[in-house]
Amino acid sequence: MRPYDIIRMKRDGGALSPEAIRTFIHGYVSGAMEDYHAAALLMAVYLRGMGTEELAAWTREMIATGETLAFTGAGPYVDKHSTGGVGDKISLPLAPLAASLGCRVPMLSGRALGHTGGTLDKLEAIPGFRVDLPADRFREIVETTGCCIMGQTERLVPADRRLYALRDVTATVASIPLIASSILSKKRAAGVQGLVMDVKTGSGAFMKTRTDSHALARTLVDLGTALGMRVHAFVTDMGQPLGQWVGNALELRETVEILRGEGPPDTTALTRRFAEALLLLGGLAASPVDAAARVDAALQDGRGLGKLREMVVAQGGDPAFVDDPEVLGAARLVEPWSAPRPGFVVSVDTETVGAAACLLGAGRVGIHDRVDPAVGFEVLRRVGDPVRAGEPLLAIHANDPARLAACRERLEGAYVIGGEPPQETPLVLEELS
Amino acid sequence: MRPYDIIRMKRDGGALSPEAIRTFIHGYVSGAMEDYHAAALLMAVYLRGMGTEELAAWTREMIATGETLAFTGAGPYVDKHSTGGVGDKISLPLAPLAASLGCRVPMLSGRALGHTGGTLDKLEAIPGFRVDLPADRFREIVETTGCCIMGQTERLVPADRRLYALRDVTATVASIPLIASSILSKKRAAGVQGLVMDVKTGSGAFMKTRTDSHALARTLVDLGTALGMRVHAFVTDMGQPLGQWVGNALELRETVEILRGEGPPDTTALTRRFAEALLLLGGLAASPVDAAARVDAALQDGRGLGKLREMVVAQGGDPAFVDDPEVLGAARLVEPWSAPRPGFVVSVDTETVGAAACLLGAGRVGIHDRVDPAVGFEVLRRVGDPVRAGEPLLAIHANDPARLAACRERLEGAYVIGGEPPQETPLVLEELS
Repeated sequence: MRPYDIIRMKRDGGALSPEAIRTFIHGYVSGAMEDYHAAALLMAVYLRGMGTEELAAWTREMIATGETLAFTGAGPYVDKHSTGGVGDKISLPLAPLAASLGCRVPMLSGRALGHTGGTLDKLEAIPGFRVDLPADRFREIVETTGCCIMGQTERLVPADRRLYALRDVTATVASIPLIASSILSKKRAAGVQGLVMDVKTGSGAFMKTRTDSHALARTLVDLGTALGMRVHAFVTDMGQPLGQWVGNALELRETVEILRGEGPPDTTALTRRFAEALLLLGGLAASPVDAAARVDAALQDGRGLGKLREMVVAQGGDPAFVDDPEVLGAARLVEPWSAPRPGFVVSVDTETVGAAACLLGAGRVGIHDRVDPAVGFEVLRRVGDPVRAGEPLLAIHANDPARLAACRERLEGAYVIGGEPPQETPLVLEELS
Repeated sequence: MRPYDIIRMKRDGGALSPEAIRTFIHGYVSGAMEDYHAAALLMAVYLRGMGTEELAAWTREMIATGETLAFTGAGPYVDKHSTGGVGDKISLPLAPLAASLGCRVPMLSGRALGHTGGTLDKLEAIPGFRVDLPADRFREIVETTGCCIMGQTERLVPADRRLYALRDVTATVASIPLIASSILSKKRAAGVQGLVMDVKTGSGAFMKTRTDSHALARTLVDLGTALGMRVHAFVTDMGQPLGQWVGNALELRETVEILRGEGPPDTTALTRRFAEALLLLGGLAASPVDAAARVDAALQDGRGLGKLREMVVAQGGDPAFVDDPEVLGAARLVEPWSAPRPGFVVSVDTETVGAAACLLGAGRVGIHDRVDPAVGFEVLRRVGDPVRAGEPLLAIHANDPARLAACRERLEGAYVIGGEPPQETPLVLEELS
């Protein structure tokens, strides 16, 4: 089967046959298929879409290009994945909380991308913490401690790295089937049996509309079923930064607060909801009420916090911050970003807030930039809150005056202040399974 | 402007800005834009289309990547282009006929492609005939003799060669705007002011449906106007081989017959219609009636035939065939392809007939194949004709028994014989300007 025929099949809106998919994916990884063949096919997929069976075959072939992690314990092996947002640190408290309740959480995460933060960058704010363990050590920590969070290994789904790099330069990243296959191929290859998906929607998310977010959530659930794994998807609001803190060490501080039962309402609520869903996916709770009670208990008695400490130690990190977050250090400059007029916070351009945090050093502008763990924002006012003129909306934590100035310039206009409070948006907009 | 932004613009269905088009076309030719960028963009263009102004800007930028031929005479400089068919030799009698009536015809033609014949291959059946003249000599022959037919020069529209090669391997050839820009960029760069376009439709054409053929004709006329040239488009039937002969030397024989006023009805009619259209485009006839009378006279008094002789001599060829087509030689084997049952010729799979002619050696299967000028078909029965069982539909002219056998195998089923004659299809289905 020639590349030409495969491209034409999708160009004309047909479903790719299993043979076409196999020929393409393996041909591309082996070099028999050129980048230009793949670029034309990916654009055709972007504009024509893929059906569930077709997408499942595509994802299975992606997985087959690499190794897979096989766990031999009883499990349940569960995980959570978010499409990314600003202040979204839920993975950090969730993995130990779920592990403390009997889940096994083999979590392979990513770095800051664009305006969003990265779980690995946050963990690297802990002195000594390693996110590049050998696969055997990863597996061992999951089996013994119950959770481990590290980076993708080179050997899982090499097709995804090649395809993603090409999608990134050919404007074909934002394709729902291609996003879904990228996420689930890696989760399936990592041995995950049950997955909570957090599809973010709104001004700080990659999916800006409810329609697109719903479609991605639906595709993830259906593809999961076709691949023999259970996916429970949430569509959640990313119309403003999540929680109290944005920034790497700052989000570790919030993580500890959440696990102490003292976290902000929104991040605490999401952590609880997702932990409950993981228990139900893993068969560790008899009902939603039972799941909620178990999660409650683990937050009350400090089991989640204890598991975080265990995981940090297992991954080579210094757990001192669990008892005293101040040891992570603080930024030298703290300045307010204030409301220009009185009224209510009507909306936040959250992508801009994320990009402004990047400029401080909380994320990367270039691929070789170093992340500064101490910088970021404290969120002082949320959508719907009343503000007086000159009252701070954010506290900016910076280490460099030039970067602080760039950040302030970027923030201009990000907060809309109006005369009336907006209609309230629920945090969890939808749940699919 | 990054390649990414240009691709995204078209991916989302927008019109490419003049700046985006300039950046892309020149970037691609210079190597600043990669093949994979271009492949993604071409697929997006294939599926999203282009508007007239956008397409005109695209075509102008293609032209600007190379040289242009500037004629200094009074003209009018006119040309005819066909989308290609089986037995379509109209360019051969038309160029000298129009030149004999005062037109200047700078005709840059192509070779056999897929199942269709190529004007250059046909002309090369004439001993000594050169289709690779220097641009200056081409211009000189057009100015003095009135017509010259040769191959594309390397220096006109280099962007088209690069884009075409990529479209060929990424299944993006059959895009109406990309086809139109490819044709008109080369015509405009060659100094053509008025163009007759013959858009073939039906089983032997690249455009199989009336809808697509009409759309291409409309796009060519509108794009021509936007580029400052006049295009008169015909949609003509390619539901059966055109004329009496299919094959290179065999089509030269028919050319001479047409210019003697003794050609078959269909090729004679098209040659006349197109010659009339060229005279009107060039301002050399006052009305359609006047144009028809002039064409009539040139066929009657042998002026067209004389001009063919002049052109052949100017291009280094031996004109003996004009007086005696037998000098071109004949194939060794002539065998009938006969009707299996009595009835009427209901339809012909013309692409298959063309492909069968290729197998004889009339066209190319591989890029390095040599064309055999003597082989081809004589068309003995046309759609609608009654046939008896065993009566020949074609006479196959071959030089090699193995190729003859392959040709016979390919022809199987190409002619449909039924109990009733089909509804008659007019040769010219539509005219647009």
